[in-house]
Amino acid sequence: MYTVRQLRNALRLCITPALNWRFHHVTPQFVEDLRSVVGDSNVSTAMTVREHHGRDESMHSCQPPDVVVWPQNVEQVSRMANLCFTHNVAIIPFGTGTGLEGGVNALKGGVCFNMTNMDKVLNVNTEDFHVTVEPGVTRKSLNTYLRDSGLWFPVDPGADASLCGMAATSASGTNAVRYGTMRDNVINLEVVLSDGRVLDTAGKDRRFRKTSAGYNLTNLFVGSEGTLGIITRATLRLYGVPEATVAAVCAFPNIQAAVDSTVQILQCGIPIARIEFLDDVMVNACNKFNGLNYSILPTLFLEFHGTEAAVKEQLKQTGEIIQLNGGSDFTWAREQEERNRLWTARHNAFYAALALRPGCQAYSTDVCVPISQLPRIIVDTKEDLLQSRLTGPIAGHVGDGNFHCIMVLDLNDKAEVHKVKEFTDRLARRALSLNGTCTGEHGIGIGKRKLLREEVGEVGIDVMKQIKATLDPKNLMNPGKVI
Amino acid sequence: MYTVRQLRNALRLCITPALNWRFHHVTPQFVEDLRSVVGDSNVSTAMTVREHHGRDESMHSCQPPDVVVWPQNVEQVSRMANLCFTHNVAIIPFGTGTGLEGGVNALKGGVCFNMTNMDKVLNVNTEDFHVTVEPGVTRKSLNTYLRDSGLWFPVDPGADASLCGMAATSASGTNAVRYGTMRDNVINLEVVLSDGRVLDTAGKDRRFRKTSAGYNLTNLFVGSEGTLGIITRATLRLYGVPEATVAAVCAFPNIQAAVDSTVQILQCGIPIARIEFLDDVMVNACNKFNGLNYSILPTLFLEFHGTEAAVKEQLKQTGEIIQLNGGSDFTWAREQEERNRLWTARHNAFYAALALRPGCQAYSTDVCVPISQLPRIIVDTKEDLLQSRLTGPIAGHVGDGNFHCIMVLDLNDKAEVHKVKEFTDRLARRALSLNGTCTGEHGIGIGKRKLLREEVGEVGIDVMKQIKATLDPKNLMNPGKVI
Repeated sequence: MYTVRQLRNALRLCITPALNWRFHHVTPQFVEDLRSVVGDSNVSTAMTVREHHGRDESMHSCQPPDVVVWPQNVEQVSRMANLCFTHNVAIIPFGTGTGLEGGVNALKGGVCFNMTNMDKVLNVNTEDFHVTVEPGVTRKSLNTYLRDSGLWFPVDPGADASLCGMAATSASGTNAVRYGTMRDNVINLEVVLSDGRVLDTAGKDRRFRKTSAGYNLTNLFVGSEGTLGIITRATLRLYGVPEATVAAVCAFPNIQAAVDSTVQILQCGIPIARIEFLDDVMVNACNKFNGLNYSILPTLFLEFHGTEAAVKEQLKQTGEIIQLNGGSDFTWAREQEERNRLWTARHNAFYAALALRPGCQAYSTDVCVPISQLPRIIVDTKEDLLQSRLTGPIAGHVGDGNFHCIMVLDLNDKAEVHKVKEFTDRLARRALSLNGTCTGEHGIGIGKRKLLREEVGEVGIDVMKQIKATLDPKNLMNPGKVI
Repeated sequence: MYTVRQLRNALRLCITPALNWRFHHVTPQFVEDLRSVVGDSNVSTAMTVREHHGRDESMHSCQPPDVVVWPQNVEQVSRMANLCFTHNVAIIPFGTGTGLEGGVNALKGGVCFNMTNMDKVLNVNTEDFHVTVEPGVTRKSLNTYLRDSGLWFPVDPGADASLCGMAATSASGTNAVRYGTMRDNVINLEVVLSDGRVLDTAGKDRRFRKTSAGYNLTNLFVGSEGTLGIITRATLRLYGVPEATVAAVCAFPNIQAAVDSTVQILQCGIPIARIEFLDDVMVNACNKFNGLNYSILPTLFLEFHGTEAAVKEQLKQTGEIIQLNGGSDFTWAREQEERNRLWTARHNAFYAALALRPGCQAYSTDVCVPISQLPRIIVDTKEDLLQSRLTGPIAGHVGDGNFHCIMVLDLNDKAEVHKVKEFTDRLARRALSLNGTCTGEHGIGIGKRKLLREEVGEVGIDVMKQIKATLDPKNLMNPGKVI
């Protein structure tokens, strides 16, 4: 029997270690201990290696880990996690380093677990539509592997990220409007917890399409950004490769007309596979970069998947909706080469934006609002960009209400970096004020922790902290991220 | 600074209260305290009322709460939860009482929160495809409310359950193959925690289609069966009403052929809306009950949603697949009346099963396996039924790998009840041995806690217990359920 007071103290204890824990840095003996687990060649303390692992593709400057290890299997991950737990050393999982919110920065030093050597595709199942992958398998390598199976994995964030890394950040991208995000497509995860225990979030080797058995641990770990455990295996849903694919492009007189078309396409139940928005600034940049001559107007890039007859019908319906909304230059293509040509502008948008200011870097903002709020937030954001004199062409997954400003800036110009930071905070708060989220698909990482608090409120943050504290009582798992 | 030992003790303390806590029963003064929150007419200690709230539609016999309350708003729920927290009294949320695993049984007495007086539909949004409902709103009442909006909520477990209750058990049903389960369709939940704190799982009034902001609390509460908090509001995804609906029925020479057809339909990417399986015993029961003359064979009931042209094409493709697999008697219908006639057998399956043994009761089992394993498990289960001399015709959501035996039994015959219990445990373990789950959509409730442990393993149960203990440290929320 415990008293209420004892329990309250226990609970407080569970919430507070994050604030109080002292991280230990890595000693030579500790490095030897790691070597004894994975072998000499799979441990590095070289500064170049550590620096390579100390940052991702975001604006956050490099914070290298003390040591990088390359585990070969889950047993090694578990043993090394347990070593870290015993010695109070931080753990940072590393996939391809293509994150956008500083998720791999080693704020407290510690051990970076580079998972790329665990790269096997396991158990492709063509009857049950699933596959199991190790954390080194990337999205593109999986689809290459699946090429002759008639199946594919549709979640596509752009970068050739590792699938377990995509699970860790709840990634999505262009296909989400039809196929959902990682949250919808992860069936099961194998996770190493901070003390080295190995958890199968849905039970070992389970791969059903649905369940009501207990708490949904799978979706607790999807989007947890390495702060609750290291993902060492993921079972994912697969889909049949569509018989036919048609790409299309259409310009609109204004943003409202483009968004209205999107809403009506969804209202009609047209199972659109992709519906991407570029603003006039981005279209102009793409024209210049790719030698194209699209009208410099808000533009939608669309893709339809289905049977020959189905995509034909979808295309016809969509054409009618677009016409009703004053769309122009509606062009479509069926063959792959033609489709690629049509989508060149969208595919190269990031590089086209970069080319606006040679020698600069780019940082992608990431907010998501109810679709009906898109015209308002995009118009306001464009006005803000003008007034702030910042370069930030807009590309968006408009079917989800998710859009990005590709901020092109000189990272050596401290004043500009500060201005961009202020702009992105304003943008996030604008999304929050419209019932939206401060991140649709990039995650919280380092920079959005304050925004997360504003988004979910005090009770929400407290509950997240309680969960973090009970699963990672020493706050060793990717410390300083998310909460 | 805490020592590892202190933290480990805290953690252990967090896991164990469930085993040690002493529940207090309700005193007259406590009932007065409840009355002062919700008013005299919204509190009852009458035995008939308590007994009405002490069981659901499962085999578990009645265990009445000490008192039933009808809160009118979230503030009252919060104040009464806090009263329970202070006085160590158990809380059991109650929707429509249509659960199937004893989720409302008051194992430890306490206060039953009947949520049906909070029954407003809030914020139907036709551009963003969502609605917010209070916990008294049922699935059918919502769709009646939406009738003129061109939108609908597709999750359909059969019973006219409350939507928040459906969220609590992660319900699904016939449409899940196309539209997903509650896990896929809940955008946000307002939840009262055990100490009375009010949590908005995705942040207050947030209603985006996707997010990567922090831990997915929404999906932690979906399927938590009232053991983590009381759901007081749910924001749900809506869908456009399809332009055309076609229903179809087809018989197969054997179970394998029916399942093969299902797999091929999914492989072809046909967006089938429903695909339901009845075994020969069930078809025979339906023929007798409804005066039909279907061939007494494994039978699929199908439904297609889309535009006129799309459903026509889906029907044609499906017809070809069915023919290749030796299907016969393929019949389809377009008009609502005709469709209802065609699906009568499926709709009345439960009552047709009951009619096999007049005066008996029915209990529905609920397992889910990878689709490819369905023929094997159904054949084995039918053999088991024969050998056990039990009546249990089979109906299944075959597109999800989920099926039910409608066990018809005499609840007064202890030996038969015991035999059914043994059979259902064998069935669940058969599902587990085929990588499946012991519950696809009914939940764990009272009877499947041991099976849950077998399904998710020791680490899985420990993690669930940690989460339960940190969010409900006094184990007051629906105690004795799930874990």
